[in-house]
Amino acid sequence: MQIAMVGLGRMGANMVRRLQLAGHECVAYDVNKAAVETMEKEGARGARTPKEVVDALKAPRHIWLMVPAAFVADTIAAFEPLLSPGDTLIDGGNSWYRDDVDRAAPLAAKGINYVDVGTSGGVFGLERGYCLMVGGPDESVKELAPIFDALAPGVEAAARTPGRTGKPTTEERGWLHCGPSGAGHFVKMVHNGIEYGLMAAYAEGLNVLAKANIGSESRAQDAETAPLTHPEYYRYDIDLAAVTEVWRRGSVVSSWLLDLTAQALQADPELAEYQGRVSDSGEGRWTIHAAVDEGVPVPTLAASLWDRFYSRDRGDVAHKVLSAMRAGFGGHSEVHDKAKGEK
Amino acid sequence: MQIAMVGLGRMGANMVRRLQLAGHECVAYDVNKAAVETMEKEGARGARTPKEVVDALKAPRHIWLMVPAAFVADTIAAFEPLLSPGDTLIDGGNSWYRDDVDRAAPLAAKGINYVDVGTSGGVFGLERGYCLMVGGPDESVKELAPIFDALAPGVEAAARTPGRTGKPTTEERGWLHCGPSGAGHFVKMVHNGIEYGLMAAYAEGLNVLAKANIGSESRAQDAETAPLTHPEYYRYDIDLAAVTEVWRRGSVVSSWLLDLTAQALQADPELAEYQGRVSDSGEGRWTIHAAVDEGVPVPTLAASLWDRFYSRDRGDVAHKVLSAMRAGFGGHSEVHDKAKGEK
Amino acid sequence: MQIAMVGLGRMGANMVRRLQLAGHECVAYDVNKAAVETMEKEGARGARTPKEVVDALKAPRHIWLMVPAAFVADTIAAFEPLLSPGDTLIDGGNSWYRDDVDRAAPLAAKGINYVDVGTSGGVFGLERGYCLMVGGPDESVKELAPIFDALAPGVEAAARTPGRTGKPTTEERGWLHCGPSGAGHFVKMVHNGIEYGLMAAYAEGLNVLAKANIGSESRAQDAETAPLTHPEYYRYDIDLAAVTEVWRRGSVVSSWLLDLTAQALQADPELAEYQGRVSDSGEGRWTIHAAVDEGVPVPTLAASLWDRFYSRDRGDVAHKVLSAMRAGFGGHSEVHDKAKGEK
Amino acid sequence: MQIAMVGLGRMGANMVRRLQLAGHECVAYDVNKAAVETMEKEGARGARTPKEVVDALKAPRHIWLMVPAAFVADTIAAFEPLLSPGDTLIDGGNSWYRDDVDRAAPLAAKGINYVDVGTSGGVFGLERGYCLMVGGPDESVKELAPIFDALAPGVEAAARTPGRTGKPTTEERGWLHCGPSGAGHFVKMVHNGIEYGLMAAYAEGLNVLAKANIGSESRAQDAETAPLTHPEYYRYDIDLAAVTEVWRRGSVVSSWLLDLTAQALQADPELAEYQGRVSDSGEGRWTIHAAVDEGVPVPTLAASLWDRFYSRDRGDVAHKVLSAMRAGFGGHSEVHDKAKGEK
Repeated sequence: MQIAMVGLGRMGANMVRRLQLAGHECVAYDVNKAAVETMEKEGARGARTPKEVVDALKAPRHIWLMVPAAFVADTIAAFEPLLSPGDTLIDGGNSWYRDDVDRAAPLAAKGINYVDVGTSGGVFGLERGYCLMVGGPDESVKELAPIFDALAPGVEAAARTPGRTGKPTTEERGWLHCGPSGAGHFVKMVHNGIEYGLMAAYAEGLNVLAKANIGSESRAQDAETAPLTHPEYYRYDIDLAAVTEVWRRGSVVSSWLLDLTAQALQADPELAEYQGRVSDSGEGRWTIHAAVDEGVPVPTLAASLWDRFYSRDRGDVAHKVLSAMRAGFGGHSEVHDKAKGEK
Repeated sequence: MQIAMVGLGRMGANMVRRLQLAGHECVAYDVNKAAVETMEKEGARGARTPKEVVDALKAPRHIWLMVPAAFVADTIAAFEPLLSPGDTLIDGGNSWYRDDVDRAAPLAAKGINYVDVGTSGGVFGLERGYCLMVGGPDESVKELAPIFDALAPGVEAAARTPGRTGKPTTEERGWLHCGPSGAGHFVKMVHNGIEYGLMAAYAEGLNVLAKANIGSESRAQDAETAPLTHPEYYRYDIDLAAVTEVWRRGSVVSSWLLDLTAQALQADPELAEYQGRVSDSGEGRWTIHAAVDEGVPVPTLAASLWDRFYSRDRGDVAHKVLSAMRAGFGGHSEVHDKAKGEK
Repeated sequence: MQIAMVGLGRMGANMVRRLQLAGHECVAYDVNKAAVETMEKEGARGARTPKEVVDALKAPRHIWLMVPAAFVADTIAAFEPLLSPGDTLIDGGNSWYRDDVDRAAPLAAKGINYVDVGTSGGVFGLERGYCLMVGGPDESVKELAPIFDALAPGVEAAARTPGRTGKPTTEERGWLHCGPSGAGHFVKMVHNGIEYGLMAAYAEGLNVLAKANIGSESRAQDAETAPLTHPEYYRYDIDLAAVTEVWRRGSVVSSWLLDLTAQALQADPELAEYQGRVSDSGEGRWTIHAAVDEGVPVPTLAASLWDRFYSRDRGDVAHKVLSAMRAGFGGHSEVHDKAKGEK
Repeated sequence: MQIAMVGLGRMGANMVRRLQLAGHECVAYDVNKAAVETMEKEGARGARTPKEVVDALKAPRHIWLMVPAAFVADTIAAFEPLLSPGDTLIDGGNSWYRDDVDRAAPLAAKGINYVDVGTSGGVFGLERGYCLMVGGPDESVKELAPIFDALAPGVEAAARTPGRTGKPTTEERGWLHCGPSGAGHFVKMVHNGIEYGLMAAYAEGLNVLAKANIGSESRAQDAETAPLTHPEYYRYDIDLAAVTEVWRRGSVVSSWLLDLTAQALQADPELAEYQGRVSDSGEGRWTIHAAVDEGVPVPTLAASLWDRFYSRDRGDVAHKVLSAMRAGFGGHSEVHDKAKGEK
């Protein structure tokens, strides 16, 4: 079928490619003209303006937005006046699910359908397919089923779960209609919240392995530092690249994230190109907001978010307060780090 | 080669089977006679006493212990007097790595080798192979390489990591010599610590999904309860079995643990057979001990351990203290749960 | 000066009393007629309707709302049509600070001032005075200074902080103008977030003391349970009431919350009247929301909130998922609690 | 009575002073001769060697060790051969309670009593008195009661807890016999674990206040950074010194730690002299070890320990792993901090 892709970054461009491989007809648009030209060379029909996008499509139109969350509102505002009743806007980016709820109602009042799609798969999606979590009205989702099936990995991407037989359901093919407006991004939000937790679990464990040789380091004994009671038990020099590799086969912790970690450590055992300042881009935060509102304990998911904040020195004031308190009640001086500038 | 397996539970019995499939000759021993008979029927040579085990093996002997951590010391004590210099004891269970360090030295003084092996794979190991993390002296590990290769999954169990070419290393075949005595169990300990964190991440996220319909529940408004500011954003009825299934293909959170979760939810969407009292069996705790000693922050791994403690009502006294404090400063009464018995 | 108190619950009634002791003239109103009568008997001028409240006051009027957060909006809506430019509404309850921001603007457009006051002190406030955190326009706050001074504890309630000399500032007298609309409730929100963390710190520590005798309990050894390596170090029978009492004098952890805890344990060493279901009433949650938005790590404040959720069994689905996973990969059966009903 | 003080640092010297003020006769010893001379000038009897200490005391001798935990074993070893049956060694430092258990037994076999005393009060103890948590045999503790009473703050240091009447118990006077050997340091350990949690609660809350103006900062919108949905709610410029001061009177969070924080912020509102590298000196770690062994959830206490580890960049490897994973699955580049050196 015919569909327009608005936003031709990493994700959008690869989705166009995957859709075209499946025989769908794509109109490609981006504010970056070069990105449009690239897609044109690969067989898509390029568009230079929202109007060109809309004109290039037969009604009922399907327009897939694949832009950063911060630009979705403006993009919808640009397209909405050009659309007709029965047309459908799909937000495939990382929007907050609440925005979907808020956006769907006024669009519905004008007869425009709105579908929210949480998309996982990252830079590997072109090849592996995308996992799609969909929210919105039944009719619109049904209309888009061929698109979702083209983007999704397909049932053969994993062994079938025991007990599941017969014609594979959509969730087995790689996409799921999760509920009404916002449900797709809600499930994607929690998916990413889980992703943060999984990543942190690996990262913390590898850090414990990385410092398993602390018993071989000489340390001065003073009243400011916790002594290591049994240095003889901390004299291991563990090869992180080898460990992550061995865990890939037969272990309980094998996963795609582990595969990527093994790959990164194989390429650069010291990960020297990284400073360890870890960004976070919305869903991890929103998962915590949702858990707080629902009254659900999410200590590991939250810890993985705080961990990223710490990595960017956002604990700074708290740490100064702690040192000030210690000086106050115990006369403890800070053990300064020369690199940060001795006072 | 010839090897004895001591302990024929879930894990030990399957390891005998996998070793025999690879052509190794197994002597099988357990305090439970029925377990020995089962193995005899499957072609192993049964033994009724430690002495029979030792007599059945040609020197240098290799005896693999696969018993609960609490019984390893006694088992070693039973075998040690019967062994000769050059013989090797392998602890393949879930011992604390410090016990390996403590046990290896006196055995080495008598010329007996001691190898510690952390084993992952659970009930699926017979078919998938076991991921083996090995500690101990180089010579002993080299001697046991054929055994490790038979138990491990083999390189074909996963796609090779980009950048790894040529003859597969042992870690690519599924086993790794991690370092001197205790290193195998140290790495396995951290592996399980990570496993706790991964499991908790999925579990917490699914709980957020499970309660996404809280906005549809009616709640009385009082001064004791946090109001839900925006109930309209919490009206989703999410199908956990479908969600875990869709995440299995193409998503960043796909993993073997997710496969198992999808399978459990497919079989019983309410997980009605579980009370939610989650055991912990050592390694998760030891990982926290190690992180504390090393000065490594492990907030997600620790949170997943506390979570299990909470599941078994181990927060009880703390919670009573909190309610008493609230009564003290605010005159707040507890909102009692009728099921626990109104006072 | 003249002021009306709307809401005569625990807090409002005591505030009327404290204001009258300081010579202020109070109009008292509540939907509960009996509460109004009680205040009338104590010398306040009772009012039966919002209109009676407004009529009883000379312009410019000052009306202090002391009602649960969930009822503030309706209460403002009831009073607003009756007010004149120059009148002031004060929300002294536990509103979300964002509501203050949203409410202040439309009221300001009508010339009505809005002041938000976070109030700490609980049931002891009548005697100890209330700690007041104030937000709103400078002029309105200045007008209310005599009221704040009457409600606040006064400088003599604590030793002056070294370095503070001369005429005591308002913060030394016990109230602070924290900033524009919402700032008072923002600071109060964080105050309560801290309170949650402090309470949890004591409660967790007391739980560690309460279980210090675990080495004296006999436990079966099995593969499902983490063994206690050194029971000989856990044979203490600690008297919690005595410990909290001894910490009250000279220790670093002395505080008002500790005083209350010692008092509760003195009255009932087993805290037998509590089930340990701990409520939370808004500010703890909002503090986490704010920290997430600001990108500030708040692991202890968040942990204390999750802890309350756990106390009310809100981890239920997560725990079932964990048990299901353990059964899946390890064949582990749950160790059921008979009290919850063996399956 | 007569007592020797071994270790004349911050704590030991002040304890000598407080004991002498109460009329006790002190022998003062330290490896630092200057410290001994200072005490001599203040009226203590100086000693230059362990032997001089022992010779200066009449049997049965009481020798109080006030040295860093790392030096206690050697100090006991130096004194033990010089002592006679009936003499008593007191460890008043911050030893691990398990060392007490291990040390008491062999000393008891020689008739030497061993008493462990956890001491809180810091640099203010001379004036405020010390809170003392005592472990050891009844007889020895009874013998030392006059010493404990002299060091402790005394009942008048706080209002009596309602319900406590008659002659004040020792815990009301400021010292408590907590149980057999190790019990004193066990309770002190948990005391410090709580202290870590309390400190972190204040520090985190103040950090949330410190960053309440984030909505006024301009931020570029990109796909790597979580957008701030509602900047209009984060435009407060909060005065931390004033806030901590106002909380000192009448609020639920008032405490001695808050007093110290208010004082530090009053002296230096930016806490510019601190880098925020927070040390930890044993008890916080041991509390987590104990909680893990006991199976008690201590999420806030643990979070406060991880926080200190983070403050000293001990999360480094984990953070690099996270950035490497993000690059792996999403092609995300790190947003580098120029201060750390752009790559």
